[in-house]
Amino acid sequence: MEFEEKVKKVEHVFDGKIIDLDIETVELPNGKEAKREIIRHQGAVAIIAITDENKMVFIKQWRAPLGQVTLEVPAGKIEPGEDPNVTAVRELNEETRFEADKLEFINTFYTSPGFADEKMYMYHAVNLKPVKDELPQDSDEFLELVELSLPEVEQAIAEGLICDSKTLIAVMYWKLMQ
Amino acid sequence: MEFEEKVKKVEHVFDGKIIDLDIETVELPNGKEAKREIIRHQGAVAIIAITDENKMVFIKQWRAPLGQVTLEVPAGKIEPGEDPNVTAVRELNEETRFEADKLEFINTFYTSPGFADEKMYMYHAVNLKPVKDELPQDSDEFLELVELSLPEVEQAIAEGLICDSKTLIAVMYWKLMQ
Repeated sequence: MEFEEKVKKVEHVFDGKIIDLDIETVELPNGKEAKREIIRHQGAVAIIAITDENKMVFIKQWRAPLGQVTLEVPAGKIEPGEDPNVTAVRELNEETRFEADKLEFINTFYTSPGFADEKMYMYHAVNLKPVKDELPQDSDEFLELVELSLPEVEQAIAEGLICDSKTLIAVMYWKLMQ
Repeated sequence: MEFEEKVKKVEHVFDGKIIDLDIETVELPNGKEAKREIIRHQGAVAIIAITDENKMVFIKQWRAPLGQVTLEVPAGKIEPGEDPNVTAVRELNEETRFEADKLEFINTFYTSPGFADEKMYMYHAVNLKPVKDELPQDSDEFLELVELSLPEVEQAIAEGLICDSKTLIAVMYWKLMQ
C-alpha cells in the first residue's frame, strides 16, 4: 500500500515562543486532498537521574495546559541548532543542580505524532554529583526538586502527580533496568 | 513553595478539526505575568492488543507532522462527551477488525504537558477475536495492520518505525508483563 501524503501547500497560522502552527494541504494516496494541523516544536531532552540512594530525581512544577502541579523527570527545550547532549547537560544543571560523569543516550521518541513534531531525546545521567558552577534559571520557572524511591514513584503515579508520557517512559525504563 | 499560575486572560487563536490553540496570560507565584501557549485536544485512547500467537498489533500509517510512516498501537480521538471505553471499542474495530472479551483500563497520561492538554487513556484488549460487524473507516485514513513478536518490535524500534510515546509505553508495559 502507498502511504505517503504529498504536501501541496503550507499555511503558517501562528508563530509562538514554544510552538508554531502550520496547516498543510496534502494529496492523499488516492489523489484526494486533506488538511493537516501540525504543531512545530524545536524538540526537547529528558533525563533519567538516579541518586546514590537509588531514588529517581523529579521536578515539581505547575503545568498551565493541565491546570495542576506535576512531577516530571528533568527536561527542557533544545535551542535552535543545539546538540541535544549540550541541552541535557544544561537542563540537568539548571533544574537539579546535579552533573553526571556521563550522559548515556537512550532513545528518541515523538510525544504526539498525530498533530505535533516534538521529538524527545532521552538520556541516563550516570554518577550524579553536585554541580560546581550553577547556571542561571529561567525567571518564569518555579521548580522544586523531589527524589523518590520506586514505591514512592508508584504512589505518585496512583495519585496522578506523575502523569506524562516521557516520565512514564523513564520510570518503566528504570523498572526494566532493576 | 506556591506553584499555581492564575489565568488572567484567554485568547482563542485557532479552532481546528483536531486541535485548538489558546494563549493564556497567567499571574505567576511572584505576581509577574507570563504568556502560555496551550493546545487543546479532546483526548484519545490507545490499545494494547496481543494476539493468541503472542504478537502485538500495530497500525502502519503516514504521519504528516513527521513526514514518515510509523507503526503505532491502535488509537483514536475521543468524541466530545464520549466515554473513553466506547472510543476504545470503536477504534479497535475500525483500525484492526478485532474485538475483545474485555478492555481493561490500564492508566492515563498526558502526551506533552508543556504545551498540550491531550490526555491518553490506555487499555489492554483481553482475548482478541475477529469482529462480527465492521464499522466504517475514515475516508482519509490509509491504514495497514501489522502483527509483531517482541524481537520484531525491538527491531522496529531500532529502525525508527516504532517511535511515539504511547507505543513505547505500550511496549514497555508488555515487556513488564512477561
